[in-house]
Amino acid sequence: MSSSVQESLDLIRRGASEILLESELTERLRRKNRLRVKAGFDPTAPDLHFGHLVLLEKMRQFQQLGHEVIFLIGDFTGRIGDPSGKNVTRPPMTVEEIADNAVTYKQQVFKVLDPDRTLIRFNSEWFGSQSAADMIKLASSHTVARMLERDDFSKRYTAQQPIAIHEFLYPLVQGYDSVVLEADVELGGTDQKFNLLVGRELQKQHGQEPQVVITTPLLEGLDGIQKMSKSLGNYIGIEDEPDEMFGKIMSLSDDLMWRYFELISATSMAELSALRSAAEAGRNPRDIKFTLAMEMVERFHSKQAAERARASFIARFQRGEDPENLETIEFDFAVPRIAVSTILRDCGFTNTTSDARRLIDQGAVRIDGERIENRAMEIASPGSYVIRAGKRRIANIVLKATAQ
Amino acid sequence: MSSSVQESLDLIRRGASEILLESELTERLRRKNRLRVKAGFDPTAPDLHFGHLVLLEKMRQFQQLGHEVIFLIGDFTGRIGDPSGKNVTRPPMTVEEIADNAVTYKQQVFKVLDPDRTLIRFNSEWFGSQSAADMIKLASSHTVARMLERDDFSKRYTAQQPIAIHEFLYPLVQGYDSVVLEADVELGGTDQKFNLLVGRELQKQHGQEPQVVITTPLLEGLDGIQKMSKSLGNYIGIEDEPDEMFGKIMSLSDDLMWRYFELISATSMAELSALRSAAEAGRNPRDIKFTLAMEMVERFHSKQAAERARASFIARFQRGEDPENLETIEFDFAVPRIAVSTILRDCGFTNTTSDARRLIDQGAVRIDGERIENRAMEIASPGSYVIRAGKRRIANIVLKATAQ
Repeated sequence: MSSSVQESLDLIRRGASEILLESELTERLRRKNRLRVKAGFDPTAPDLHFGHLVLLEKMRQFQQLGHEVIFLIGDFTGRIGDPSGKNVTRPPMTVEEIADNAVTYKQQVFKVLDPDRTLIRFNSEWFGSQSAADMIKLASSHTVARMLERDDFSKRYTAQQPIAIHEFLYPLVQGYDSVVLEADVELGGTDQKFNLLVGRELQKQHGQEPQVVITTPLLEGLDGIQKMSKSLGNYIGIEDEPDEMFGKIMSLSDDLMWRYFELISATSMAELSALRSAAEAGRNPRDIKFTLAMEMVERFHSKQAAERARASFIARFQRGEDPENLETIEFDFAVPRIAVSTILRDCGFTNTTSDARRLIDQGAVRIDGERIENRAMEIASPGSYVIRAGKRRIANIVLKATAQ
Repeated sequence: MSSSVQESLDLIRRGASEILLESELTERLRRKNRLRVKAGFDPTAPDLHFGHLVLLEKMRQFQQLGHEVIFLIGDFTGRIGDPSGKNVTRPPMTVEEIADNAVTYKQQVFKVLDPDRTLIRFNSEWFGSQSAADMIKLASSHTVARMLERDDFSKRYTAQQPIAIHEFLYPLVQGYDSVVLEADVELGGTDQKFNLLVGRELQKQHGQEPQVVITTPLLEGLDGIQKMSKSLGNYIGIEDEPDEMFGKIMSLSDDLMWRYFELISATSMAELSALRSAAEAGRNPRDIKFTLAMEMVERFHSKQAAERARASFIARFQRGEDPENLETIEFDFAVPRIAVSTILRDCGFTNTTSDARRLIDQGAVRIDGERIENRAMEIASPGSYVIRAGKRRIANIVLKATAQ
């Protein structure tokens, strides 16, 4: 196997639940440089949270490998809504609402995806002009028994909960999208596996090579147990304010932190491996979690916002300070390590470095909430630290590296 | 209840399997003079047999009562065929084929129905312009569980025989036809009951008063046991040649004869009652069967053909004669009864009426295969009789009445 195919496979496998069939994926990666990778999204108001990032990150990985990603908005069924009227949360949507949502989608997902390698499509493009007869033909492609194999249908049927007939048509609509798009790969959550396989079957029926189906796991929410969801309140929204996002990430258990790293962080596999080694060697997991929190806040806000959020987090959660009053002081240094005593003097907390050293000796200086005991202690530049001297003097110190 | 509503109900009930709901029918008959009565037919090549007459006769009765009958040809689904491709006998039909079949339908059914009170419609008129979204909306109106209540679906599902999903859509298509047509009544065989009830439900969902559903029984074929069907070979085709049709009717058991009278004969209920009384009083059932056979051959061919078929039948089945050689001789009489001896002389079988009387005395004369013993015997005019004198002389005698 060529190393590039092997590298691709390694990245595609990262965090994936299932690849059906991996042999087909391997073969297709060898044969085609540029796969068409489809993932479907609801046209309903997008208010993405980190649970959605699992799929988006997998899409981003395919882009990173040079493939084309199709961000498919299922607006055809969205325009119909739930015509049985039983689902009040799914009223029919207007063309305008869907267009607005598409704009919002773009704003949100292009913080993860590369716009130049993303094709946004709407399935109303082809379904909008289909006739009732076309839908009947599509319905003829599958049996009732096959549809009742879908886990949720089977459960509802057994429990005598109603399943409206049109619900059997929606997986076929989704599958037919793959036929039109001639998808090489379709990505979706594990709960979408059945629908993704319908796409494979329809492609075969239409004489196409069936798409490879890759499912991604459902991300656990802050509680570490339940699937992340807005209604459960255990979510991190990608539009959460920096402080809130940072704080929520810091609240994750260590185990969950590693899962988030694997599933939603763009940290390379080599970097991730290095972080794991550091943790095993005794590095404080809190510091590693800072890395994750910084990455996410930077991705959805900015680097500056991430630094501020970090400082604010330390102040709020470790010292009970009001983060609004936290002053940020920036320094440019041409060296990679600077003595804490120098910083304390330079930011005006003490008059001299000697005063600073005395303060350290007295145990009155904390960096990121941790008491300093070594008066010769140095901190790395670039970097961002909340430094406190005594009870009143506190600041967010941002060290920048200046090239010599 | 007004006598006219009561009379209508009596006729509508004749031979019907079920009326759902009879109270609604009564109420609607009181309120409306002209009901819209729908019956659906396949667009496939019509080759109607007497089994189809049960439904057509019920339609004719509604026409007789002054109502409007809609002969609905389900060409929309016919044009799709069985898209699953599993049913080779149901290929998609072209517009031309369907138009041809409609012409044939007209030729055949207008031998029973009154063209002036028959509206021929095609459901492609409304479904042809419907969109895939419309079909999804229609599919949302019923649940999978409700559809699996249909007897044949339930059996197939339990037996793990495949049911393609589009088969769930066809009852909805049929039901929606009732919505478009605003049917007051839908007629169909007992095997259609489920589909007819779907029409009721859809009409209610569309804010219409639900149609009254009337099912007609499936007619037993010549064997008296199995449902009449072409594939079982136990059928009487409405395009059967007069002799064949006549002979098949004559082969019915007496019980089956009464069932055919009730279900497919236009004999009025009063006449039917008189026939039953005559049978109870000892009249030969064969003669009563002649009445049925004559009615049917006359309806689908002509009065003359019926008379010839009757004569031919008698010759063939009662005397072993070759019906091809049977001469028909017509007489005009101004009186209602004529002596057999006169006929024998007039048709040249004897030279004189005295010779004729002697032949009768010798037991050498048969009318319709029955030996005559009374030399003064008279036969009614108008009428048609196979008369035989001795071994060689035989003719089909048709007596016409001439107004004085």
